[in-house]
Amino acid sequence: MGSLNSENSNGFHAGEHGDAGGKTAGKVITCKAAVLWGPGEAFKIEEIEVEPPQRLEVRLRILFTSICHTDLSAWKGENKLQQIFPRVLGHEAAGVVESVGEGVEDLRPGDRVVPVFTGECGCCEMCQSDKTNICSGFAVDPLRSVMRADGRVRFFCVGPDEERRPVYHFLNTSTFAEYTVIDSACVVKVPAEAPLSRMCLLSCGVSTGVGAAWNTANVEKGSKVAIFGLGAVGLAVAEGARLKGAAHIIGIDINPSKYVKGREMGIRDFINPKELTKPLHEVIRELTKGGVDYSFECSGNVEVLREAYLSTHTGWGLTVVLSVDPSCSQLPVFNMELFQRKIVAAVFGGFKPKSQLPGLINKCIAGEVKINLDGFISHEMPFSEINQAFQLLSEGKALRCLLKL
Amino acid sequence: MGSLNSENSNGFHAGEHGDAGGKTAGKVITCKAAVLWGPGEAFKIEEIEVEPPQRLEVRLRILFTSICHTDLSAWKGENKLQQIFPRVLGHEAAGVVESVGEGVEDLRPGDRVVPVFTGECGCCEMCQSDKTNICSGFAVDPLRSVMRADGRVRFFCVGPDEERRPVYHFLNTSTFAEYTVIDSACVVKVPAEAPLSRMCLLSCGVSTGVGAAWNTANVEKGSKVAIFGLGAVGLAVAEGARLKGAAHIIGIDINPSKYVKGREMGIRDFINPKELTKPLHEVIRELTKGGVDYSFECSGNVEVLREAYLSTHTGWGLTVVLSVDPSCSQLPVFNMELFQRKIVAAVFGGFKPKSQLPGLINKCIAGEVKINLDGFISHEMPFSEINQAFQLLSEGKALRCLLKL
Repeated sequence: MGSLNSENSNGFHAGEHGDAGGKTAGKVITCKAAVLWGPGEAFKIEEIEVEPPQRLEVRLRILFTSICHTDLSAWKGENKLQQIFPRVLGHEAAGVVESVGEGVEDLRPGDRVVPVFTGECGCCEMCQSDKTNICSGFAVDPLRSVMRADGRVRFFCVGPDEERRPVYHFLNTSTFAEYTVIDSACVVKVPAEAPLSRMCLLSCGVSTGVGAAWNTANVEKGSKVAIFGLGAVGLAVAEGARLKGAAHIIGIDINPSKYVKGREMGIRDFINPKELTKPLHEVIRELTKGGVDYSFECSGNVEVLREAYLSTHTGWGLTVVLSVDPSCSQLPVFNMELFQRKIVAAVFGGFKPKSQLPGLINKCIAGEVKINLDGFISHEMPFSEINQAFQLLSEGKALRCLLKL
Repeated sequence: MGSLNSENSNGFHAGEHGDAGGKTAGKVITCKAAVLWGPGEAFKIEEIEVEPPQRLEVRLRILFTSICHTDLSAWKGENKLQQIFPRVLGHEAAGVVESVGEGVEDLRPGDRVVPVFTGECGCCEMCQSDKTNICSGFAVDPLRSVMRADGRVRFFCVGPDEERRPVYHFLNTSTFAEYTVIDSACVVKVPAEAPLSRMCLLSCGVSTGVGAAWNTANVEKGSKVAIFGLGAVGLAVAEGARLKGAAHIIGIDINPSKYVKGREMGIRDFINPKELTKPLHEVIRELTKGGVDYSFECSGNVEVLREAYLSTHTGWGLTVVLSVDPSCSQLPVFNMELFQRKIVAAVFGGFKPKSQLPGLINKCIAGEVKINLDGFISHEMPFSEINQAFQLLSEGKALRCLLKL
């Protein structure tokens, strides 16, 4: 496939989808959603009621959603504190605004948008600082399962016991549903000509990886880079590093099937830690004559993080953490080591979602930035096959499964 | 006292001291040194033999030395791995070049200099990078006790058993001696008009603190700053932050006698953790309505480091670690927390010693930078009273004791 602006086949244009004419505004919408009733269970496609958006909220018609490892982790129930059911997961998506709540001024019905799991109110002290992309009101919070406005949910569903019960929200977004209600701070307008099937990828994984390379690490031409974990986020780091002219990109994964896509994204050397007879960081330091300039931890494993940290060059080495270890362990870094190399973490690649993502999208459309978005989509399937998609991702057989609603 | 360039009373001028005429060059010099024979023992002023400098080494006549907490820690033997005796400690000093070894081109006998514990060869990959001030060959190494050139010492002394034995080096410098031999990478030339008694302070503590505020944190006008530990390094951070226009500087120390000097250096509020009924970081976050922009850990205590980390503002908060916890513990930061706030460490305030310290000194002399160097000197005494000086520092009664050799 060519550049983004030549793609029409997979994207929809404004007005093609959604009930953006106002017929449903203010009313409860009954629609389909993939509801999770317990950890590790199959999602059930249920009819749910979606309430109208409250003040500063937006109701979206979701047209595409894909599955990220954070969904996988929540599905498995890896963090006990996050186990609240029934729940609508999903946070990587694209769609159209169906209606807006009171006070929403920057979005209108019919706007093509992507939801984002970490919001930007634009007004708080942190939104007004150029040193962080965390918003004091709408930062990602894996423990939150209700709307901020009133501490209630906007989804209801009749359970197996015939009781109508609340269905909980997830990561500010809950996109495994035909309609969802989201704080307007977590909804980014995209240009009318942007293909929503690809914008979906920019709502989480690809922006997270590319942004970590560009904003957080600021990878320069000629840099040496090591990426630990070659899922979509890791490959997006490679894509970001390649676009900035990194001279040597090393990919690390225990699943060699990832290497094919990895090569497309600019990774030159692959290391399978299972095949090594000495510590991974030593191998990388030898291969790069002293260590990489930047290492990126995209596996969500604290032992891998230690290897990533030690694989950078003394003095200027920087490790960027993109993934969360569900074990909530202490950073595997000793005090003295911090004098030798740096470590930082980034949410959403350091992008302020509402004020910076549109700029990135415009550059993609104009062809100024050539992110290979198509390359991240390994499978396309109807929303009804969501369980198969989870299975594929869980087995390491999928990069991104794009579900069409 | 006024600006640096008006100060003559405490400084010496080139030619006043040292045998810079070449009479001693190439010969063993017998002189006095404060030798430590065991952890926590009193220093003994012994006659030692100081060999001539080897290739790329320099022999200095030390004129002033002061005592830093790293000396105190080594004296106590806090790190078992560093216990090697007899040894000449000391690393904060100023003096005159007595003679130079083969290949030394940037220094000549008679040059006024300060030794630095962390060197700069100027040639290695790291010296040529503007992203680090660590030199691959001459970085500080607390475990090193011999010269790099031949793995031998340049000091000898007759012990209590009448045996002539090697005396070990310390932190690339060993300045508690009238003469010492140092790698030329660890010797910084200072302008002829610079008062050596004050330059002494710039060879470690003051540069470390000021540089952490300027180079590592880059404190901006209007910033909120918290400094944990108000020894000379912590006060130098305050001085650096004040000079950059920080709006609110908070000092934390369990010793209230530090507050007098602290106020001179620009600290507005003082907190004694012993007087609190709730966690220190909560107190600071309340006092600053959300947390400081920058916190500086200058106490060398990992529990204090945790408080320093949590006392910064979510999103943009940055903690700079300047001190080393002798327990070699893991960073007291949990993985998830790294997404909220940053932590870095700095050696020698991020200054490249040979290429950047002279610029700072020149600005001090020209009055462009008004670091209150005098304010750091709490005591002046002859070198022979070194044990008293250690006692004062150990009891928290001294900031910097300036010893005159």
